[in-house]
Amino acid sequence: MTHTLVPSDHVEGAAVYGRDGKRIGTIERLMLDKRRGTIAYAVVQTGGLLAIERHHYPVEWSSLHFNAVRRVYETDTTLDALRGGPSELDGEEFDWGDRSTPYRHPQYWTV
Amino acid sequence: MTHTLVPSDHVEGAAVYGRDGKRIGTIERLMLDKRRGTIAYAVVQTGGLLAIERHHYPVEWSSLHFNAVRRVYETDTTLDALRGGPSELDGEEFDWGDRSTPYRHPQYWTV
Repeated sequence: MTHTLVPSDHVEGAAVYGRDGKRIGTIERLMLDKRRGTIAYAVVQTGGLLAIERHHYPVEWSSLHFNAVRRVYETDTTLDALRGGPSELDGEEFDWGDRSTPYRHPQYWTV
Repeated sequence: MTHTLVPSDHVEGAAVYGRDGKRIGTIERLMLDKRRGTIAYAVVQTGGLLAIERHHYPVEWSSLHFNAVRRVYETDTTLDALRGGPSELDGEEFDWGDRSTPYRHPQYWTV
């Protein structure tokens, strides 16, 4: 039977590819809006094996589409586009939930 | 700064206590509605160390309230009440996303 439900721990760790066909990274976690009961955005981790090379980008949940054949998520954005937006380097204490300041990349912060 | 966002991987594994103060279990995962971008329900795992003793119950997200002091989730239900509803034993292939059949415990299936 078909339905639209997906387990959170199956989303975490899934690969994400951009519209240019290149791999962007993997979904590290989802940020959830506790009160609204909604998925605010996915945190996509990019980069290499070393922590210093890794970045974490917010990607709007609705922009992620699961490709059931490839078993990956596809999105309309690209890694280059994400690099122009907000990110978090490993070790930085960026408050992902803080929306009190304007973001440079509002497309991926819209809930 | 305060906000209402919580990371999915901080929710997974969190303890859940019932209104009687007794521990129900831990949040195993969240079931997400892909299209709506909402949290359908949490799957709460109860029971012991042996797989055969463990049960998995659906608990509505809105009924879970995070107690920031105890760092646990509290809910209005109890383990006894959950036992009267749908569950899944480890190893069974219960389709949690299937809503085509009526549930005996509708309170915790409402989205």
